Amino acid sequence: MPTQLRHFDQELEQLKSKLLAMSALVESAVYRSITAVVQKDRKLAEEVLQNEARVNRLEIEVDDQAISLLALQQPMAGDLRLITSALKINNDLERMGDLAVNIAQRALALIEEPTIQPAIDIPHIGALVQNMVRKALDSFVAKDAELAQSVLSSDDAVDSLRTAFFHELISFMQREPSHIPQGLNLLSIVRNLERIADHATNIAEDVLYYVKGIDVRHHAEAIAGMAREPRA
Amino acid sequence: MPTQLRHFDQELEQLKSKLLAMSALVESAVYRSITAVVQKDRKLAEEVLQNEARVNRLEIEVDDQAISLLALQQPMAGDLRLITSALKINNDLERMGDLAVNIAQRALALIEEPTIQPAIDIPHIGALVQNMVRKALDSFVAKDAELAQSVLSSDDAVDSLRTAFFHELISFMQREPSHIPQGLNLLSIVRNLERIADHATNIAEDVLYYVKGIDVRHHAEAIAGMAREPRA
Repeated sequence: MPTQLRHFDQELEQLKSKLLAMSALVESAVYRSITAVVQKDRKLAEEVLQNEARVNRLEIEVDDQAISLLALQQPMAGDLRLITSALKINNDLERMGDLAVNIAQRALALIEEPTIQPAIDIPHIGALVQNMVRKALDSFVAKDAELAQSVLSSDDAVDSLRTAFFHELISFMQREPSHIPQGLNLLSIVRNLERIADHATNIAEDVLYYVKGIDVRHHAEAIAGMAREPRA
Repeated sequence: MPTQLRHFDQELEQLKSKLLAMSALVESAVYRSITAVVQKDRKLAEEVLQNEARVNRLEIEVDDQAISLLALQQPMAGDLRLITSALKINNDLERMGDLAVNIAQRALALIEEPTIQPAIDIPHIGALVQNMVRKALDSFVAKDAELAQSVLSSDDAVDSLRTAFFHELISFMQREPSHIPQGLNLLSIVRNLERIADHATNIAEDVLYYVKGIDVRHHAEAIAGMAREPRA
């Protein structure tokens, strides 16, 4: 095997392991932030805040490595899809890390406030979102298109839970105006969970592109758009 | 000039003009969504929803062109920075487009509800955010590092406006629990504006990288993180 090729394979392996390290960090940040809310655990919330800098450093390293591979090695077909997917997944992971930080901050704010009991099932939606994140990352590691596809279906479940939650929360705040600050913290937590679910969906779409070579982004919208805007 | 090089320059020009078309579409979506809220203009809000498919199609075209340039042409130095910045800016623009859609949806919801008058200056924060978006995009076109830098400073102003707004909104909803649904729509609009400002800041950072070759992402956090986590 020529030296240049061996070098390319080594760099590709490095890219994969850095991206896996990034996945592990972010998955753990999501887990800790949700558990901090559910169990009112200040220490877990603080760990999420402390790990943010590490996530940010790793994001830059993954980006730099992917771009150098793209620009200097002329990868083809499967390798090219792997590298461009790595770039996109990396971006989604960094944003999921930011959202976990938002949730951890809300967890700390809620620990300061008197406990309230609105009929809102944060553990349920939290478990659902965590499950999506794990499946999306596992589907990348295992190159498992079926698993990636199952993430796309879960996203609708999160959306309907969020809508039900939103209506419950409005009634709760109208009944108990003095608890509006806590209600808004819960609202923010659910919105951040919903956005984490959206990023897990993006990752699953990238995995489908990587494994099958099909771009599933915006597919339905694009078709609808073409029907609506024939001159575009 | 050899054919291959001429071909590369043509593709690079195509990439730039597609990205400019994308910028124009998204800037106009942001403008229309804010104006739809401020002037309760249903038609403008609906235009934002109708244009989403076009933004999504253009995002995929810009991505494909940038990746094909990166992978097949081995660009160096300045061209490489232009192409990787185009990829990142494209991603931020697409998300800004999504956020404008969120705002347009809230504008439509508010048009259905009785008008309320909390002491919340949506036109002010809206104008500030629009100004950041325009400056960030202009700084890319003009390769103007100073203009990009001015976007980074505006982000703090948006953050403090948002905090003040948040407190005002809580008092308003506590005084008028029957207007909580409208209050939550306003809250969502301000959060979406804040996120648009964050993406304008990302774009300004990418422009600084493109023009000066300095990666300013997470710079402060990375330094703080190194101080905090010496073994990382």
